[in-house]
Amino acid sequence: MSAVVDRACLVVTGPDRPGLVSVVTAAIAALGGNIVALDQYTDDPDGGEFFQRVVFDLPGLAAAMPDLRRELGEVLEPVGLQWRLRDLGVPLRMGVLVSLSDHCVLDLLWRVRRGDLPVTVPMVISNHTAVAGDVRGLGVPFLHVPSAPGEREAAEERLLELLVGNVDFVVLARYMQVLSADFLERVGVPVINIHHSFLPAFVGAGPYRKAKERGVKLIGATSHYVTPDLDAGPIIEQDVVRVTHADSAADLQRRGADVERAVLSRAVLWHAEDRVVRHGNQTVVF
Amino acid sequence: MSAVVDRACLVVTGPDRPGLVSVVTAAIAALGGNIVALDQYTDDPDGGEFFQRVVFDLPGLAAAMPDLRRELGEVLEPVGLQWRLRDLGVPLRMGVLVSLSDHCVLDLLWRVRRGDLPVTVPMVISNHTAVAGDVRGLGVPFLHVPSAPGEREAAEERLLELLVGNVDFVVLARYMQVLSADFLERVGVPVINIHHSFLPAFVGAGPYRKAKERGVKLIGATSHYVTPDLDAGPIIEQDVVRVTHADSAADLQRRGADVERAVLSRAVLWHAEDRVVRHGNQTVVF
Amino acid sequence: MSAVVDRACLVVTGPDRPGLVSVVTAAIAALGGNIVALDQYTDDPDGGEFFQRVVFDLPGLAAAMPDLRRELGEVLEPVGLQWRLRDLGVPLRMGVLVSLSDHCVLDLLWRVRRGDLPVTVPMVISNHTAVAGDVRGLGVPFLHVPSAPGEREAAEERLLELLVGNVDFVVLARYMQVLSADFLERVGVPVINIHHSFLPAFVGAGPYRKAKERGVKLIGATSHYVTPDLDAGPIIEQDVVRVTHADSAADLQRRGADVERAVLSRAVLWHAEDRVVRHGNQTVVF
Amino acid sequence: MSAVVDRACLVVTGPDRPGLVSVVTAAIAALGGNIVALDQYTDDPDGGEFFQRVVFDLPGLAAAMPDLRRELGEVLEPVGLQWRLRDLGVPLRMGVLVSLSDHCVLDLLWRVRRGDLPVTVPMVISNHTAVAGDVRGLGVPFLHVPSAPGEREAAEERLLELLVGNVDFVVLARYMQVLSADFLERVGVPVINIHHSFLPAFVGAGPYRKAKERGVKLIGATSHYVTPDLDAGPIIEQDVVRVTHADSAADLQRRGADVERAVLSRAVLWHAEDRVVRHGNQTVVF
Repeated sequence: MSAVVDRACLVVTGPDRPGLVSVVTAAIAALGGNIVALDQYTDDPDGGEFFQRVVFDLPGLAAAMPDLRRELGEVLEPVGLQWRLRDLGVPLRMGVLVSLSDHCVLDLLWRVRRGDLPVTVPMVISNHTAVAGDVRGLGVPFLHVPSAPGEREAAEERLLELLVGNVDFVVLARYMQVLSADFLERVGVPVINIHHSFLPAFVGAGPYRKAKERGVKLIGATSHYVTPDLDAGPIIEQDVVRVTHADSAADLQRRGADVERAVLSRAVLWHAEDRVVRHGNQTVVF
Repeated sequence: MSAVVDRACLVVTGPDRPGLVSVVTAAIAALGGNIVALDQYTDDPDGGEFFQRVVFDLPGLAAAMPDLRRELGEVLEPVGLQWRLRDLGVPLRMGVLVSLSDHCVLDLLWRVRRGDLPVTVPMVISNHTAVAGDVRGLGVPFLHVPSAPGEREAAEERLLELLVGNVDFVVLARYMQVLSADFLERVGVPVINIHHSFLPAFVGAGPYRKAKERGVKLIGATSHYVTPDLDAGPIIEQDVVRVTHADSAADLQRRGADVERAVLSRAVLWHAEDRVVRHGNQTVVF
Repeated sequence: MSAVVDRACLVVTGPDRPGLVSVVTAAIAALGGNIVALDQYTDDPDGGEFFQRVVFDLPGLAAAMPDLRRELGEVLEPVGLQWRLRDLGVPLRMGVLVSLSDHCVLDLLWRVRRGDLPVTVPMVISNHTAVAGDVRGLGVPFLHVPSAPGEREAAEERLLELLVGNVDFVVLARYMQVLSADFLERVGVPVINIHHSFLPAFVGAGPYRKAKERGVKLIGATSHYVTPDLDAGPIIEQDVVRVTHADSAADLQRRGADVERAVLSRAVLWHAEDRVVRHGNQTVVF
Repeated sequence: MSAVVDRACLVVTGPDRPGLVSVVTAAIAALGGNIVALDQYTDDPDGGEFFQRVVFDLPGLAAAMPDLRRELGEVLEPVGLQWRLRDLGVPLRMGVLVSLSDHCVLDLLWRVRRGDLPVTVPMVISNHTAVAGDVRGLGVPFLHVPSAPGEREAAEERLLELLVGNVDFVVLARYMQVLSADFLERVGVPVINIHHSFLPAFVGAGPYRKAKERGVKLIGATSHYVTPDLDAGPIIEQDVVRVTHADSAADLQRRGADVERAVLSRAVLWHAEDRVVRHGNQTVVF
């Protein structure tokens, strides 16, 4: 993924009505932009919600952003549309929280290093120290924030001090602590989790054990935005892998790890490219 | 699948202990059988449960079956093993129950006709008449047993009259009636269902609508043995297909239908070939 | 798939340049159309080829088609764009050619009957008679055009008499005759084939036997537009299924049949919805 | 994957005849072994080739190995069987050759470290130095053997000096040099390659570019034993991933990398567990 220059991404949502696509594309054309990708979705042609993502090239984008924002606002807001605009040449800053398992965090950092995930990683934070050496070896700051029983509140305060202002989104790369509703509100940026089951099956702890007990023939992983309701937030991506009666719970865990890291890396990529739009408790992924 | 002659299938289960595989294979060798396939599984090498399926060729099998049974019993029962023996040249008789949807029943009957499912089909029974023409067109008897509210008990009585003694297993090929525990006991043969979700997610009615509401990115189907607990019996086979935000609940239903018929036909094939061994609420599929 | 009324599909291609998306969407807005789906693709933002598919609703579409065509031509042709416009309420007419295998043709006809494939089927033609009963049983005309060695030219003449003017595209649903370049030119409509391998592996006859000999671990099927070069035309869709050493060539054929019919039905659906744009020897599938 | 103690793996091949399974299992029982897994395959029940893999537990295995070998030889060789016996508690030694791409080698080493691949890694050798830091950071010796044009023979000599006697098999983890038939003979151990296409499609260099040109809708990777014929050796494992017209050749390379490392790690695991039996130019994978 080579560096992107002079490329913007505009996401627009609002009540559908005839002509909206044309309004948006005409506005971009009028500003001198060349559309290189466009996706559009309406959940109901009769009075539903309208979603559009447009990627366009514009010479001198970085300098032109303030003007762009003003002019887009003047066109889009009068017709009732909400919008967000990003310069895709400015990568999002991703904070990572992790506990003991290394497979998700190392896969993310390796993808960032090889240029496949357009993000920067200001910090990896863990309530353990198991992954410290690997993380620092990949050139990424590692911070230890213990989270002993009874100290959860203090731990969350410390996390907020570290994260707020420094990251654009947070990834829970197998972080085995439940974050409070208060934390989610105060952190102020999207939080993406990877859950080691095919949600909504096997919510909560021990999903591989539960999967073994239920005798399922496929196990899965789900990446979703975190909300105060445990494992119930909007799903970004899911995948599964086939298992048999002969796989032990440990086998499920080992094979599931491959699915977890694959699903999480896709969800993070799509979020980083601004392809995901939340819609109630669902997502539109362009 | 050409006709199979002189081929037997022996399934053995019991408490594991050293030498069991050898006991079984020596018994077959002593009887003159040539093993063509053997699968074996122990859920725990230290004192677990032992499962074995052996397929063997024996000239003159049909005539030899009574002797075989007696001799196998003499060898296997003293070491605490349960066993079942089948002549694979005698296909199982499959009864099918269906409501309005035709995709599962027609796919099963088409596979039987082309010789891909080693079963015979004495009858298809429905609480509607929608599929009567197609079923009879494929040369299979169709019987109508209405099941109006308040008449469920009478309907089950009628089903039992038709099925008991005439079929070796029953397939619910999208039969939208819940069968009573009393029926399941009295029918006396295994009953296989296809549920249109990736169990244990979305138990009960309306799984595609529930899947749409939850915003899942994969939908699935599950074939399982029916028990008195709704959609909670031992799973035989499952599969999934990818969907997106743009798929309506009707799209999910249409795309799910392809998964349903594929999953059900695999489950029926494996049951017909005696590859499935129930183990508590799980299955071993050899 | 309920009947579609007042819904049009416009496909536009041509040399890319800034503002094209806006030109097209503004034209549709000016004509009173409400865009319900839009896909766009440029193979190279710097001077590549531009592809766009727009689906829009317009009250009174059927009556307005002539005006629409004139006005779209006036807008799109001056900027160098080629275009095609369809009223999606008028289903394409699909002619089917088949030899002995029934799985592809029956699956297509069954999907048409249940309303999942928006086409009509004026005729099924075969060089054998094996599928005549099933086809007619589904209410579709069946015609027998034998194709003995030495009579290929006469057979193709007969096919042309039947097809030309009566169908909008032709599907080779396991038709085991190679069609001549002359036939392809004179039939004048797209011809879609299903090849029973994962192309470009195993071109030509006997792909399952070749797959078995090579010892592959996945087998596949490929649907493509037919060109005079055998099995080398633009690919529309492909898929695979896992196999093992224990599967015989007959097993591969049986399991491959499921992939063939699934792949072909998707390719036909996408063609029927005008989602496929040919681009040299490749396809853009929106 | 916890350490395995007192567990042996016996692989037997030879001309099939009645009673072979019983001969093998009786021999193991006579030696005091408890069979924990058994797979068996005959490519043709009438006079074909017989393959069997048995895993069994035997207290004091390490000390008993010489006796075991002698006694198994006395039983198996008179009936025409070839066999190999391994103490699964003694991991195979894996040598890795790599060029510039890091994804395969790092994934293998990471799996070894977490205990998911039962091998040791005496050395990683590269004709470049790009991965030296990462490999050594994972505690594995890295050796640089340049392979400039005109020096291939000298490079192969150097490789042989390093590998022979020190490794039990060699993995080409994206090693972009063709090894000579002479090297393959002299190295004396199996060599496993990962090829970045779904073989037999796209043999040789540049498979992703070729895949893009052909317009395929799935790309794949294939792991196979290396023979003197380029990319034509027995296939161990393959897999694919879906792509679209919108994926550039660079996208294919990036997405293919995930399939490559997954396929290679499965092939290496199966080889390390002695699950793979070569059979002409095919493999039996138990």
